[in-house]
Amino acid sequence: MEKAQLLYEGKAKRLYKTDEQGILWVEYKDSATAFNGEKKEEISGKGRLNNQITSLLFEKLKANGIASHFVKQLSDSEQLVREVSIVPIEVVVRNIVAGSMAKRLGLEEGKEIEKPVVEFYLKDDELGDPLITDDHVAMLELATEQEVTVLKDKARKINEVLIGFFQEIGVDLVDFKIEFGRDENGEILLADEISPDTCRLWDKETKQKLDKDVFRRNLGNLTDAYELILSRLGGQN
Amino acid sequence: MEKAQLLYEGKAKRLYKTDEQGILWVEYKDSATAFNGEKKEEISGKGRLNNQITSLLFEKLKANGIASHFVKQLSDSEQLVREVSIVPIEVVVRNIVAGSMAKRLGLEEGKEIEKPVVEFYLKDDELGDPLITDDHVAMLELATEQEVTVLKDKARKINEVLIGFFQEIGVDLVDFKIEFGRDENGEILLADEISPDTCRLWDKETKQKLDKDVFRRNLGNLTDAYELILSRLGGQN
Ligand SMILES: Nc1ncnc2c1ncn2[C@@H]1O[C@H](COP(=O)(O)OP(=O)(O)OP(=O)(O)O)[C@@H](O)[C@H]1O
Ligand SMILES: Nc1ncnc2c1ncn2[C@@H]1O[C@H](COP(=O)(O)OP(=O)(O)OP(=O)(O)O)[C@@H](O)[C@H]1O
Ligand SMILES: [Mg+2]
Ligand SMILES: [Mg+2]
Repeated sequence: MEKAQLLYEGKAKRLYKTDEQGILWVEYKDSATAFNGEKKEEISGKGRLNNQITSLLFEKLKANGIASHFVKQLSDSEQLVREVSIVPIEVVVRNIVAGSMAKRLGLEEGKEIEKPVVEFYLKDDELGDPLITDDHVAMLELATEQEVTVLKDKARKINEVLIGFFQEIGVDLVDFKIEFGRDENGEILLADEISPDTCRLWDKETKQKLDKDVFRRNLGNLTDAYELILSRLGGQN
Repeated sequence: MEKAQLLYEGKAKRLYKTDEQGILWVEYKDSATAFNGEKKEEISGKGRLNNQITSLLFEKLKANGIASHFVKQLSDSEQLVREVSIVPIEVVVRNIVAGSMAKRLGLEEGKEIEKPVVEFYLKDDELGDPLITDDHVAMLELATEQEVTVLKDKARKINEVLIGFFQEIGVDLVDFKIEFGRDENGEILLADEISPDTCRLWDKETKQKLDKDVFRRNLGNLTDAYELILSRLGGQN
Protein backbone atom coordinates (compact mmCIF):
# COMPACT_ATOMS: atom_id res chain seq x y z
CA MET A 1 0.00 0.00 0.00
CA GLU A 2 1.34 3.42 -1.00
CA LYS A 3 0.37 6.76 0.49
CA ALA A 4 -0.82 9.14 -2.27
CA GLN A 5 -1.98 12.78 -2.30
CA LEU A 6 -3.28 14.60 0.77
CA LEU A 7 -7.07 14.66 0.67
CA TYR A 8 -7.90 16.66 3.78
CA GLU A 9 -6.04 18.12 6.73
CA GLY A 10 -8.18 18.68 9.82
CA LYS A 11 -7.30 19.83 13.30
CA ALA A 12 -6.48 16.31 14.50
CA LYS A 13 -5.73 14.18 11.44
CA ARG A 14 -4.44 14.14 7.88
CA LEU A 15 -6.25 11.95 5.35
CA TYR A 16 -4.39 10.73 2.25
CA LYS A 17 -5.52 8.80 -0.77
CA THR A 18 -3.72 5.48 -1.36
CA ASP A 19 -3.01 3.44 -4.46
CA GLU A 20 -6.04 1.36 -3.53
CA GLN A 21 -9.40 2.80 -4.59
CA GLY A 22 -11.64 3.52 -1.58
CA ILE A 23 -8.90 3.17 1.04
CA LEU A 24 -7.53 6.20 2.94
CA TRP A 25 -4.31 6.55 4.92
CA VAL A 26 -4.84 8.47 8.18
CA GLU A 27 -2.09 10.24 10.13
CA TYR A 28 -2.99 11.31 13.65
CA LYS A 29 -1.42 14.68 14.51
CA ASP A 30 0.00 15.93 17.81
CA SER A 31 -2.15 19.10 17.76
CA ALA A 32 -4.62 19.72 20.54
CA THR A 33 -7.38 22.26 19.90
CA ALA A 34 -10.44 23.34 21.88
CA PHE A 35 -13.20 25.94 21.84
CA ASN A 36 -13.52 25.75 18.08
CA GLY A 37 -9.77 26.22 17.55
CA GLU A 38 -9.31 29.16 19.95
CA LYS A 39 -7.05 27.19 22.32
CA LYS A 40 -4.25 25.36 20.52
CA GLU A 41 -1.11 23.45 21.49
CA GLU A 42 1.27 20.80 20.17
CA ILE A 43 1.36 17.81 22.51
CA SER A 44 3.96 15.25 21.62
CA GLY A 45 2.56 11.72 21.81
CA LYS A 46 -1.10 12.70 21.43
CA GLY A 47 -1.35 11.52 17.81
CA ARG A 48 0.16 8.16 18.71
CA LEU A 49 -2.18 7.70 21.68
CA ASN A 50 -5.35 8.62 19.78
CA ASN A 51 -4.41 6.40 16.87
CA GLN A 52 -3.73 3.46 19.18
CA ILE A 53 -6.87 3.96 21.28
CA THR A 54 -9.11 4.46 18.23
CA SER A 55 -7.65 1.37 16.53
CA LEU A 56 -8.15 -0.69 19.66
CA LEU A 57 -11.75 0.51 20.19
CA PHE A 58 -12.75 -0.01 16.54
CA GLU A 59 -11.30 -3.57 16.75
CA LYS A 60 -13.23 -4.25 19.94
CA LEU A 61 -16.44 -2.79 18.43
CA LYS A 62 -16.01 -5.01 15.37
CA ALA A 63 -15.71 -8.06 17.64
CA ASN A 64 -19.03 -6.94 19.13
CA GLY A 65 -20.78 -6.73 15.79
CA ILE A 66 -20.30 -3.04 15.13
CA ALA A 67 -18.72 -2.32 11.76
CA SER A 68 -16.66 0.82 11.15
CA HIS A 69 -14.46 2.37 8.50
CA PHE A 70 -11.35 0.97 10.29
CA VAL A 71 -9.22 -1.35 8.19
CA LYS A 72 -5.95 -1.71 10.11
CA GLN A 73 -3.31 0.05 12.14
CA LEU A 74 -0.19 0.84 10.13
CA SER A 75 2.12 2.35 12.70
CA ASP A 76 2.03 4.17 16.03
CA SER A 77 0.24 7.15 14.55
CA GLU A 78 -1.17 5.85 11.25
CA GLN A 79 -4.08 3.68 10.19
CA LEU A 80 -5.95 2.64 7.06
CA VAL A 81 -9.69 3.29 6.78
CA ARG A 82 -12.40 2.90 4.16
CA GLU A 83 -13.26 6.15 2.45
CA VAL A 84 -16.81 7.26 3.11
CA SER A 85 -18.90 10.32 2.41
CA ILE A 86 -19.24 11.86 5.88
CA VAL A 87 -22.78 12.69 7.05
CA PRO A 88 -22.38 16.32 8.23
CA ILE A 89 -23.84 15.58 11.66
CA GLU A 90 -21.85 15.20 14.86
CA VAL A 91 -23.72 12.56 16.84
CA VAL A 92 -23.30 12.98 20.59
CA VAL A 93 -24.40 10.41 23.17
CA ARG A 94 -24.62 11.39 26.84
CA ASN A 95 -24.83 9.15 29.91
CA ILE A 96 -23.89 11.74 32.53
CA VAL A 97 -24.46 15.52 32.38
CA ALA A 98 -21.28 17.46 31.52
CA GLY A 99 -19.88 20.20 29.33
CA SER A 100 -22.21 22.15 27.07
CA MET A 101 -25.31 20.26 28.21
CA ALA A 102 -24.74 21.32 31.82
CA LYS A 103 -24.35 24.92 30.70
CA ARG A 104 -27.20 25.09 28.19
CA LEU A 105 -29.78 23.39 30.37
CA GLY A 106 -28.59 24.68 33.75
CA LEU A 107 -27.84 21.21 35.11
CA GLU A 108 -25.11 20.07 37.46
CA GLU A 109 -22.13 18.23 35.98
CA GLY A 110 -22.10 14.63 37.13
CA LYS A 111 -25.85 14.04 37.21
CA GLU A 112 -26.65 10.62 35.77
CA ILE A 113 -29.04 10.54 32.81
CA GLU A 114 -31.57 7.73 33.11
CA LYS A 115 -32.05 7.07 29.39
CA PRO A 116 -28.97 8.06 27.35
CA VAL A 117 -29.54 11.23 25.35
CA VAL A 118 -28.61 11.27 21.65
CA GLU A 119 -27.99 14.71 20.17
CA PHE A 120 -27.24 15.89 16.63
CA TYR A 121 -25.00 18.88 15.94
CA LEU A 122 -24.56 20.38 12.51
CA LYS A 123 -20.93 19.74 11.49
CA ASP A 124 -20.05 23.33 10.64
CA ASP A 125 -17.13 25.00 12.42
CA GLU A 126 -18.07 28.47 11.20
CA LEU A 127 -21.49 28.17 12.83
CA GLY A 128 -19.97 26.63 15.96
CA ASP A 129 -21.60 23.22 15.38
CA PRO A 130 -25.14 24.22 16.46
CA LEU A 131 -27.51 21.71 18.04
CA ILE A 132 -30.14 20.58 15.53
CA THR A 133 -33.36 18.57 15.71
CA ASP A 134 -34.75 15.92 13.37
CA ASP A 135 -36.83 18.61 11.63
CA HIS A 136 -33.65 20.59 10.88
CA VAL A 137 -31.97 17.44 9.51
CA ALA A 138 -34.92 17.03 7.12
CA MET A 139 -35.02 20.71 6.18
CA LEU A 140 -31.28 20.83 5.47
CA GLU A 141 -31.47 17.44 3.72
CA LEU A 142 -28.57 16.16 5.81
CA ALA A 143 -29.98 12.64 5.98
CA THR A 144 -33.20 10.80 5.15
CA GLU A 145 -35.71 9.92 7.85
CA GLN A 146 -34.59 6.30 7.58
CA GLU A 147 -30.95 7.30 7.97
CA VAL A 148 -31.81 9.35 11.06
CA THR A 149 -33.29 6.22 12.62
CA VAL A 150 -30.17 4.24 11.69
CA LEU A 151 -27.86 6.95 13.10
CA LYS A 152 -29.71 6.99 16.42
CA ASP A 153 -29.99 3.22 16.70
CA LYS A 154 -26.31 2.74 15.89
CA ALA A 155 -25.32 5.49 18.32
CA ARG A 156 -27.27 3.83 21.16
CA LYS A 157 -25.83 0.40 20.35
CA ILE A 158 -22.27 1.76 20.21
CA ASN A 159 -22.89 3.49 23.53
CA GLU A 160 -23.99 0.25 25.20
CA VAL A 161 -20.94 -1.62 23.94
CA LEU A 162 -18.50 1.18 24.82
CA ILE A 163 -19.99 1.54 28.32
CA GLY A 164 -19.14 -2.16 28.79
CA PHE A 165 -15.50 -1.74 27.69
CA PHE A 166 -14.97 1.23 30.00
CA GLN A 167 -16.88 -0.35 32.88
CA GLU A 168 -14.33 -3.22 32.82
CA ILE A 169 -11.44 -0.77 33.22
CA GLY A 170 -13.04 1.31 35.97
CA VAL A 171 -13.99 4.26 33.80
CA ASP A 172 -17.33 6.04 33.35
CA LEU A 173 -18.20 6.88 29.74
CA VAL A 174 -19.76 10.31 30.38
CA ASP A 175 -20.40 11.27 26.75
CA PHE A 176 -18.87 10.98 23.31
CA LYS A 177 -19.06 12.34 19.76
CA ILE A 178 -19.08 10.09 16.71
CA GLU A 179 -19.35 10.63 12.98
CA PHE A 180 -20.86 8.39 10.35
CA GLY A 181 -20.37 8.16 6.62
CA ARG A 182 -22.05 6.57 3.63
CA ASP A 183 -20.05 3.83 1.92
CA GLU A 184 -20.07 3.14 -1.82
CA ASN A 185 -23.43 1.33 -1.42
CA GLY A 186 -24.98 4.14 0.59
CA GLU A 187 -24.77 2.11 3.81
CA ILE A 188 -24.22 4.08 7.01
CA LEU A 189 -20.84 3.23 8.54
CA LEU A 190 -19.21 4.43 11.77
CA ALA A 191 -16.18 6.57 10.79
CA ASP A 192 -13.71 9.17 12.11
CA GLU A 193 -12.30 8.33 15.57
CA ILE A 194 -13.24 7.30 19.10
CA SER A 195 -10.57 8.52 21.48
CA PRO A 196 -10.15 10.61 24.65
CA ASP A 197 -10.32 13.59 22.26
CA THR A 198 -13.92 12.70 21.43
CA CYS A 199 -15.12 11.09 24.69
CA ARG A 200 -15.46 12.25 28.29
CA LEU A 201 -13.95 9.54 30.48
CA TRP A 202 -13.97 9.75 34.27
CA ASP A 203 -12.22 7.35 36.64
CA LYS A 204 -15.04 5.59 38.51
CA GLU A 205 -13.26 5.85 41.89
CA THR A 206 -11.39 9.13 41.86
CA LYS A 207 -13.64 10.90 39.27
CA GLN A 208 -10.36 12.05 37.65
CA LYS A 209 -10.87 13.28 34.09
CA LEU A 210 -9.02 11.10 31.58
CA ASP A 211 -9.93 12.96 28.39
CA LYS A 212 -9.54 16.21 26.46
CA ASP A 213 -11.05 18.19 29.35
CA VAL A 214 -7.53 17.86 30.89
CA PHE A 215 -6.44 20.16 28.04
CA ARG A 216 -9.61 22.30 27.84
CA ARG A 217 -9.55 23.03 31.57
CA ASN A 218 -5.77 22.88 32.22
CA LEU A 219 -6.06 19.95 34.63
CA GLY A 220 -2.55 18.54 34.22
CA ASN A 221 -0.70 16.29 31.82
CA LEU A 222 -2.82 15.17 28.89
CA THR A 223 -0.64 12.32 27.66
CA ASP A 224 -0.50 10.80 31.18
CA ALA A 225 -4.31 10.61 31.13
CA TYR A 226 -4.46 9.17 27.61
CA GLU A 227 -1.67 6.64 28.42
CA LEU A 228 -3.71 5.48 31.38
CA ILE A 229 -6.72 4.84 29.15
CA LEU A 230 -4.59 3.04 26.55
CA SER A 231 -2.85 0.80 29.06
CA ARG A 232 -6.04 -0.03 30.97
CA LEU A 233 -7.68 -0.97 27.65
CA GLY A 234 -4.81 -3.44 27.18
CA GLY A 235 -2.80 -1.51 24.61
CA GLN A 236 0.98 -1.20 24.83
CA ASN A 237 2.49 2.23 25.20
CA MET B 1 -67.28 37.87 37.43
CA GLU B 2 -64.90 39.59 39.87
CA LYS B 3 -61.17 40.09 39.43
CA ALA B 4 -59.32 38.64 42.45
CA GLN B 5 -55.64 38.51 43.47
CA LEU B 6 -52.75 38.88 41.01
CA LEU B 7 -51.39 35.44 40.19
CA TYR B 8 -48.50 36.29 37.86
CA GLU B 9 -47.11 39.37 36.19
CA GLY B 10 -45.08 38.67 33.07
CA LYS B 11 -43.45 40.98 30.55
CA ALA B 12 -46.62 41.25 28.46
CA LYS B 13 -49.57 40.30 30.65
CA ARG B 14 -50.96 40.21 34.17
CA LEU B 15 -52.95 37.15 35.22
CA TYR B 16 -55.47 37.42 38.04
CA LYS B 17 -57.58 34.84 39.81
CA THR B 18 -61.34 35.43 39.63
CA ASP B 19 -64.22 34.47 41.88
CA GLU B 20 -64.78 31.52 39.56
CA GLN B 21 -62.56 28.49 40.18
CA GLY B 22 -60.38 27.71 37.15
CA ILE B 23 -61.00 31.01 35.35
CA LEU B 24 -58.30 33.68 35.05
CA TRP B 25 -58.59 37.37 34.21
CA VAL B 26 -55.85 38.53 31.82
CA GLU B 27 -54.74 42.13 31.37
CA TYR B 28 -52.57 42.83 28.33
CA LYS B 29 -49.86 45.40 29.12
CA ASP B 30 -48.40 48.16 26.97
CA SER B 31 -44.80 47.01 27.57
CA ALA B 32 -42.66 45.90 24.67
CA THR B 33 -39.55 43.84 25.44
CA ALA B 34 -37.03 42.04 23.26
CA PHE B 35 -33.70 40.21 23.49
CA ASN B 36 -34.70 38.55 26.75
CA GLY B 37 -35.72 41.87 28.33
CA GLU B 38 -32.63 43.87 27.30
CA LYS B 39 -34.62 46.22 25.05
CA LYS B 40 -37.70 47.66 26.75
CA GLU B 41 -40.30 50.34 26.01
CA GLU B 42 -43.85 51.35 26.87
CA ILE B 43 -45.98 51.48 23.73
CA SER B 44 -49.44 52.88 24.29
CA GLY B 45 -52.07 50.76 22.54
CA LYS B 46 -50.01 47.60 22.30
CA GLY B 47 -51.90 45.82 25.08
CA ARG B 48 -55.24 46.65 23.47
CA LEU B 49 -54.08 45.47 20.05
CA ASN B 50 -52.62 42.18 21.28
CA ASN B 51 -55.69 41.43 23.36
CA GLN B 52 -58.00 42.11 20.42
CA ILE B 53 -55.91 40.14 17.91
CA THR B 54 -55.45 37.19 20.26
CA SER B 55 -59.17 37.10 21.07
CA LEU B 56 -60.05 37.23 17.40
CA LEU B 57 -57.58 34.49 16.45
CA PHE B 58 -58.62 32.18 19.30
CA GLU B 59 -62.28 32.64 18.22
CA LYS B 60 -61.40 31.84 14.62
CA LEU B 61 -59.34 28.80 15.68
CA LYS B 62 -62.27 27.54 17.76
CA ALA B 63 -64.54 27.82 14.72
CA ASN B 64 -61.98 25.65 12.93
CA GLY B 65 -62.02 22.94 15.58
CA ILE B 66 -59.04 24.08 17.60
CA ALA B 67 -59.78 24.51 21.29
CA SER B 68 -57.86 26.96 23.46
CA HIS B 69 -57.92 28.41 26.96
CA PHE B 70 -59.79 31.49 25.63
CA VAL B 71 -63.17 32.08 27.24
CA LYS B 72 -64.14 35.61 26.21
CA GLN B 73 -62.98 39.14 25.68
CA LEU B 74 -63.88 41.45 28.57
CA SER B 75 -62.68 44.82 27.36
CA ASP B 76 -60.17 46.36 24.96
CA SER B 77 -57.21 45.00 26.90
CA GLU B 78 -58.72 42.24 29.06
CA GLN B 79 -59.93 38.71 28.51
CA LEU B 80 -60.99 35.65 30.51
CA VAL B 81 -59.17 32.35 30.03
CA ARG B 82 -59.24 28.88 31.57
CA GLU B 83 -56.43 28.32 34.04
CA VAL B 84 -54.03 25.62 32.92
CA SER B 85 -50.70 24.28 34.10
CA ILE B 86 -48.33 25.60 31.44
CA VAL B 87 -46.03 23.02 29.79
CA PRO B 88 -42.61 24.70 30.11
CA ILE B 89 -41.89 24.42 26.40
CA GLU B 90 -42.13 27.23 23.87
CA VAL B 91 -43.34 25.57 20.69
CA VAL B 92 -42.15 27.37 17.56
CA VAL B 93 -43.43 26.63 14.05
CA ARG B 94 -41.55 27.97 11.03
CA ASN B 95 -42.72 28.28 7.42
CA ILE B 96 -40.05 30.71 6.22
CA VAL B 97 -36.50 31.11 7.51
CA ALA B 98 -36.09 34.16 9.78
CA GLY B 99 -34.65 35.36 13.07
CA SER B 100 -32.64 32.96 15.22
CA MET B 101 -32.98 30.09 12.74
CA ALA B 102 -31.30 32.14 10.00
CA LYS B 103 -28.47 33.02 12.38
CA ARG B 104 -27.95 29.62 14.01
CA LEU B 105 -28.02 27.63 10.76
CA GLY B 106 -26.42 30.21 8.49
CA LEU B 107 -29.47 30.47 6.22
CA GLU B 108 -30.87 33.46 4.40
CA GLU B 109 -33.97 35.16 5.82
CA GLY B 110 -36.93 34.67 3.53
CA LYS B 111 -36.10 31.16 2.31
CA GLU B 112 -39.27 29.06 2.20
CA ILE B 113 -39.25 25.87 4.25
CA GLU B 114 -40.81 22.99 2.35
CA LYS B 115 -42.17 21.09 5.35
CA PRO B 116 -42.89 23.39 8.31
CA VAL B 117 -40.33 22.97 11.09
CA VAL B 118 -41.55 22.52 14.67
CA GLU B 119 -39.05 23.43 17.37
CA PHE B 120 -39.15 23.17 21.16
CA TYR B 121 -37.43 25.71 23.40
CA LEU B 122 -37.10 25.29 27.14
CA LYS B 123 -39.23 28.04 28.74
CA ASP B 124 -36.50 29.43 31.00
CA ASP B 125 -35.57 33.12 30.70
CA GLU B 126 -32.41 32.70 32.80
CA LEU B 127 -31.07 30.13 30.35
CA GLY B 128 -32.21 32.22 27.38
CA ASP B 129 -34.86 29.68 26.31
CA PRO B 130 -32.44 27.14 24.77
CA LEU B 131 -33.47 24.91 21.86
CA ILE B 132 -34.18 21.37 23.07
CA THR B 133 -34.79 18.03 21.40
CA ASP B 134 -37.29 15.27 22.22
CA ASP B 135 -34.58 13.48 24.21
CA HIS B 136 -34.12 16.58 26.37
CA VAL B 137 -37.89 16.81 26.93
CA ALA B 138 -37.81 13.21 28.19
CA MET B 139 -34.69 13.73 30.31
CA LEU B 140 -36.08 16.87 31.96
CA GLU B 141 -39.52 15.22 32.27
CA LEU B 142 -41.17 18.26 30.68
CA ALA B 143 -43.80 16.14 28.93
CA THR B 144 -44.51 12.49 28.22
CA GLU B 145 -43.73 10.93 24.84
CA GLN B 146 -47.47 10.93 24.09
CA GLU B 147 -47.77 14.60 25.01
CA VAL B 148 -44.83 15.45 22.72
CA THR B 149 -46.72 13.86 19.84
CA VAL B 150 -49.87 15.84 20.77
CA LEU B 151 -47.89 19.11 21.04
CA LYS B 152 -46.34 18.61 17.60
CA ASP B 153 -49.58 17.50 15.94
CA LYS B 154 -51.52 20.40 17.43
CA ALA B 155 -48.77 22.86 16.45
CA ARG B 156 -48.85 21.67 12.83
CA LYS B 157 -52.64 21.79 12.72
CA ILE B 158 -52.73 25.31 14.21
CA ASN B 159 -50.12 26.36 11.66
CA GLU B 160 -52.22 25.14 8.76
CA VAL B 161 -55.31 26.97 9.99
CA LEU B 162 -53.42 30.19 10.80
CA ILE B 163 -51.69 30.16 7.39
CA GLY B 164 -55.19 30.15 5.89
CA PHE B 165 -56.37 33.14 7.94
CA PHE B 166 -53.31 35.19 7.05
CA GLN B 167 -53.33 34.08 3.41
CA GLU B 168 -56.80 35.63 3.10
CA ILE B 169 -55.54 39.00 4.31
CA GLY B 170 -52.40 39.05 2.17
CA VAL B 171 -49.95 38.19 4.93
CA ASP B 172 -47.30 35.46 5.12
CA LEU B 173 -47.14 33.62 8.44
CA VAL B 174 -43.36 33.32 8.68
CA ASP B 175 -43.16 31.71 12.13
CA PHE B 176 -44.85 31.81 15.53
CA LYS B 177 -44.45 30.74 19.15
CA ILE B 178 -47.24 29.08 21.09
CA GLU B 179 -47.60 27.67 24.58
CA PHE B 180 -49.75 24.81 25.77
CA GLY B 181 -51.05 23.87 29.18
CA ARG B 182 -52.66 20.91 30.90
CA ASP B 183 -56.27 21.42 31.97
CA GLU B 184 -57.80 19.90 35.10
CA ASN B 185 -58.18 16.56 33.27
CA GLY B 186 -54.58 16.58 32.04
CA GLU B 187 -55.66 17.38 28.48
CA ILE B 188 -53.28 19.51 26.42
CA LEU B 189 -54.86 22.88 25.60
CA LEU B 190 -53.55 25.79 23.52
CA ALA B 191 -52.94 28.72 25.92
CA ASP B 192 -51.12 32.08 26.27
CA GLU B 193 -51.51 34.36 23.22
CA ILE B 194 -51.21 34.47 19.43
CA SER B 195 -50.44 38.03 18.38
CA PRO B 196 -47.91 40.05 16.37
CA ASP B 197 -45.77 39.81 19.54
CA THR B 198 -45.51 36.05 19.07
CA CYS B 199 -45.72 35.70 15.27
CA ARG B 200 -43.65 36.94 12.35
CA LEU B 201 -46.06 38.40 9.78
CA TRP B 202 -44.90 39.75 6.43
CA ASP B 203 -47.08 41.53 3.90
CA LYS B 204 -47.20 39.21 0.88
CA GLU B 205 -46.72 42.04 -1.63
CA THR B 206 -44.45 44.58 0.03
CA LYS B 207 -42.72 42.09 2.41
CA GLN B 208 -43.25 44.77 5.11
CA LYS B 209 -42.85 43.38 8.62
CA LEU B 210 -46.11 43.62 10.59
CA ASP B 211 -44.92 42.14 13.88
CA LYS B 212 -42.61 42.64 16.86
CA ASP B 213 -39.56 42.81 14.57
CA VAL B 214 -40.70 46.42 13.95
CA PHE B 215 -39.75 46.98 17.60
CA ARG B 216 -36.75 44.62 17.74
CA ARG B 217 -35.15 46.17 14.64
CA ASN B 218 -36.48 49.75 14.96
CA LEU B 219 -38.40 49.60 11.69
CA GLY B 220 -41.00 52.26 12.45
CA ASN B 221 -44.29 52.52 14.30
CA LEU B 222 -45.29 49.29 16.01
CA THR B 223 -48.93 50.12 16.66
CA ASP B 224 -49.45 51.08 13.00
CA ALA B 225 -48.32 47.60 12.01
CA TYR B 226 -50.45 45.86 14.65
CA GLU B 227 -53.50 48.01 13.72
CA LEU B 228 -53.08 46.90 10.13
CA ILE B 229 -53.17 43.25 11.16
CA LEU B 230 -56.21 43.80 13.40
CA SER B 231 -58.20 45.68 10.78
CA ARG B 232 -57.34 43.27 7.98
CA LEU B 233 -58.45 40.40 10.23
CA GLY B 234 -61.76 42.20 10.51
CA GLY B 235 -61.41 43.58 14.01
CA GLN B 236 -62.39 47.14 14.88
CA ASN B 237 -59.73 49.52 16.16
N1 LIG C 1 -13.47 7.27 6.51
C1 LIG C 1 -13.50 8.58 6.23
N2 LIG C 1 -13.69 9.02 4.96
C2 LIG C 1 -13.71 10.34 4.66
N3 LIG C 1 -13.58 11.31 5.59
C3 LIG C 1 -13.39 10.94 6.87
C4 LIG C 1 -13.36 9.57 7.26
N4 LIG C 1 -13.19 9.52 8.60
C5 LIG C 1 -13.13 10.80 9.03
N5 LIG C 1 -13.24 11.66 8.00
C6 LIG C 1 -13.21 13.14 8.04
O1 LIG C 1 -11.87 13.57 8.05
C7 LIG C 1 -11.69 14.68 8.90
C8 LIG C 1 -10.83 14.25 10.04
O2 LIG C 1 -9.99 15.21 10.38
P1 LIG C 1 -10.01 15.90 11.79
O3 LIG C 1 -10.54 15.05 12.88
O4 LIG C 1 -8.65 16.43 11.93
O5 LIG C 1 -11.09 16.99 11.42
P2 LIG C 1 -11.46 18.22 12.33
O6 LIG C 1 -10.40 19.21 12.43
O7 LIG C 1 -12.05 17.64 13.56
O8 LIG C 1 -12.47 18.92 11.41
P3 LIG C 1 -13.90 18.57 11.13
O9 LIG C 1 -14.64 19.70 11.79
O10 LIG C 1 -13.99 18.54 9.63
O11 LIG C 1 -14.15 17.24 11.80
C9 LIG C 1 -13.07 15.03 9.42
O12 LIG C 1 -13.69 16.01 8.60
C10 LIG C 1 -13.81 13.72 9.30
O13 LIG C 1 -15.21 13.90 9.17
N1 LIG D 1 -54.31 29.83 30.71
C1 LIG D 1 -53.20 30.05 31.41
N2 LIG D 1 -53.06 29.55 32.66
C2 LIG D 1 -51.94 29.76 33.37
N3 LIG D 1 -50.88 30.46 32.92
C3 LIG D 1 -50.95 30.98 31.69
C4 LIG D 1 -52.10 30.79 30.86
N4 LIG D 1 -51.87 31.41 29.69
C5 LIG D 1 -50.63 31.94 29.75
N5 LIG D 1 -50.06 31.69 30.96
C6 LIG D 1 -48.73 32.10 31.45
O1 LIG D 1 -48.83 33.43 31.93
C7 LIG D 1 -47.67 34.15 31.61
C8 LIG D 1 -48.07 35.24 30.64
O2 LIG D 1 -47.43 36.37 30.88
P1 LIG D 1 -46.44 37.02 29.86
O3 LIG D 1 -46.74 36.72 28.44
O4 LIG D 1 -46.39 38.44 30.27
O5 LIG D 1 -45.15 36.21 30.30
P2 LIG D 1 -43.69 36.49 29.82
O6 LIG D 1 -43.15 37.74 30.35
O7 LIG D 1 -43.70 36.24 28.35
O8 LIG D 1 -42.92 35.43 30.63
P3 LIG D 1 -42.81 33.92 30.38
O9 LIG D 1 -41.39 33.79 30.01
O10 LIG D 1 -43.19 33.31 31.70
O11 LIG D 1 -43.77 33.61 29.26
C9 LIG D 1 -46.72 33.20 30.91
O12 LIG D 1 -45.84 32.60 31.84
C10 LIG D 1 -47.68 32.16 30.36
O13 LIG D 1 -47.04 30.92 30.21
MG1 LIG E 1 -12.26 15.70 14.20
MG1 LIG F 1 -45.21 35.77 27.07
